[in-house]
Amino acid sequence: MGGIVPAVEISLRVRYAETDAMRIAYHANYLVWYEMGRNELMRVNGLPYRVIEERGYIMPVLEAGSQYIQSALYDDELVVRTTLQRQSRASVRLDYEVLREGVVINRGFTRHCFLTLAEHKLVPIPAFYLEQFNWE
Amino acid sequence: MGGIVPAVEISLRVRYAETDAMRIAYHANYLVWYEMGRNELMRVNGLPYRVIEERGYIMPVLEAGSQYIQSALYDDELVVRTTLQRQSRASVRLDYEVLREGVVINRGFTRHCFLTLAEHKLVPIPAFYLEQFNWE
Amino acid sequence: MGGIVPAVEISLRVRYAETDAMRIAYHANYLVWYEMGRNELMRVNGLPYRVIEERGYIMPVLEAGSQYIQSALYDDELVVRTTLQRQSRASVRLDYEVLREGVVINRGFTRHCFLTLAEHKLVPIPAFYLEQFNWE
Amino acid sequence: MGGIVPAVEISLRVRYAETDAMRIAYHANYLVWYEMGRNELMRVNGLPYRVIEERGYIMPVLEAGSQYIQSALYDDELVVRTTLQRQSRASVRLDYEVLREGVVINRGFTRHCFLTLAEHKLVPIPAFYLEQFNWE
Repeated sequence: MGGIVPAVEISLRVRYAETDAMRIAYHANYLVWYEMGRNELMRVNGLPYRVIEERGYIMPVLEAGSQYIQSALYDDELVVRTTLQRQSRASVRLDYEVLREGVVINRGFTRHCFLTLAEHKLVPIPAFYLEQFNWE
Repeated sequence: MGGIVPAVEISLRVRYAETDAMRIAYHANYLVWYEMGRNELMRVNGLPYRVIEERGYIMPVLEAGSQYIQSALYDDELVVRTTLQRQSRASVRLDYEVLREGVVINRGFTRHCFLTLAEHKLVPIPAFYLEQFNWE
Repeated sequence: MGGIVPAVEISLRVRYAETDAMRIAYHANYLVWYEMGRNELMRVNGLPYRVIEERGYIMPVLEAGSQYIQSALYDDELVVRTTLQRQSRASVRLDYEVLREGVVINRGFTRHCFLTLAEHKLVPIPAFYLEQFNWE
Repeated sequence: MGGIVPAVEISLRVRYAETDAMRIAYHANYLVWYEMGRNELMRVNGLPYRVIEERGYIMPVLEAGSQYIQSALYDDELVVRTTLQRQSRASVRLDYEVLREGVVINRGFTRHCFLTLAEHKLVPIPAFYLEQFNWE
């Protein structure tokens, strides 16, 4: 089917807007950071998400999960390490690790399908996407 | 030109997600609450924003301002009181008061123009919008 | 250990701020809506989250998961149906269903532990919490 | 009183989470980007906001304003250029320009006061802050 696309890393700094009254990063923001990681993985692999929409597709999230191991604080510098793999004829899976000073503080994943931009119709993974990653 | 559309009120409860590490509501969220107030004012006046988009227009924000008088806390029940007026041939202005237990804790405004949905082209206030408010 | 606390429902309307360029609600917002559901379940059961912090505890999220079945659109009226159960000596689990016009469009869960507010020290579920739900 | 602290620039990329159904960046996010600019200005000047809280103060927003000149799109690379000045005995003002490819697409400001972290009591600009900027 197709192998794992090697990890790509981004770094980010926790915004004040992302903290909550517990003085830690609000848990929903990790999903946003995953999006940043996913975005960069796709860019590095020659297929920025913007291009996918230009080609007439969107990739909505089918499923997401997250495990919170340690809290992140305002102004912390975090690294998001992202990998990609094919999961079925029609879906891909991304896995994420969020690290602070080399320690994994959060782990998660998202699964995505492909819909046509115009009609939101479910389609198999497009050929140009398969080719980009040498998936068969 | 056209009078002020009378105030419409909504109430909301501050979400944990909307607080920050100061343990108060993060200031950018007031703009989101203004959107909720604006939304309800339009709905009450027979022209929900959804309908405006269905008719082929969007109403982006040209300018926004906000004065923070007292902080809002998690779980506070707030009221947003919204009024609308025409400001020029091509723009409208909304004013907002945010109240807690009858006391104004924030005041703000937004100004909006009309663009065509398809091409993002600036247009005057559409006739159906003027008519809805008996503006001339 | 302790039974399931019966479902509590809230309704909400999708904010424009919560949509994204796919013209659907951004997936991370469901976690925020779960928070609203959780909040109301606790309030209805006599133990609003605010009170839990007043008693010296916070309840951070250990794990979260979400399955996206259908997209939500701007201005959709959604219902969040929340249940609570004890999961271990030290953690609780909440399950959520998001419905639109009676149809489940999303399902998810969160797991929470208890930390002391002052020192962020892990503790078992506090006695007042167990008693509130007749858990043993 | 005290001069203008020279401009500091940061760059950022518009997140998908920051777009809305108009397919542009939601207007409230500019206030979040201002926070990032403000944060970096303070860091560069030897007084990261984290340190201000460690010294026992918070700097809530008293007032904010924003003018939206052109829309920002998903994945756009933006620059935020921030300056700081003293505004009174007890408040500072920051001005922001958001640029895309050298063109200003948004302008805004925020005003802040100083409160004690413990009691949220209003105080004049602390001496260590004045000294850092050679204000008198």
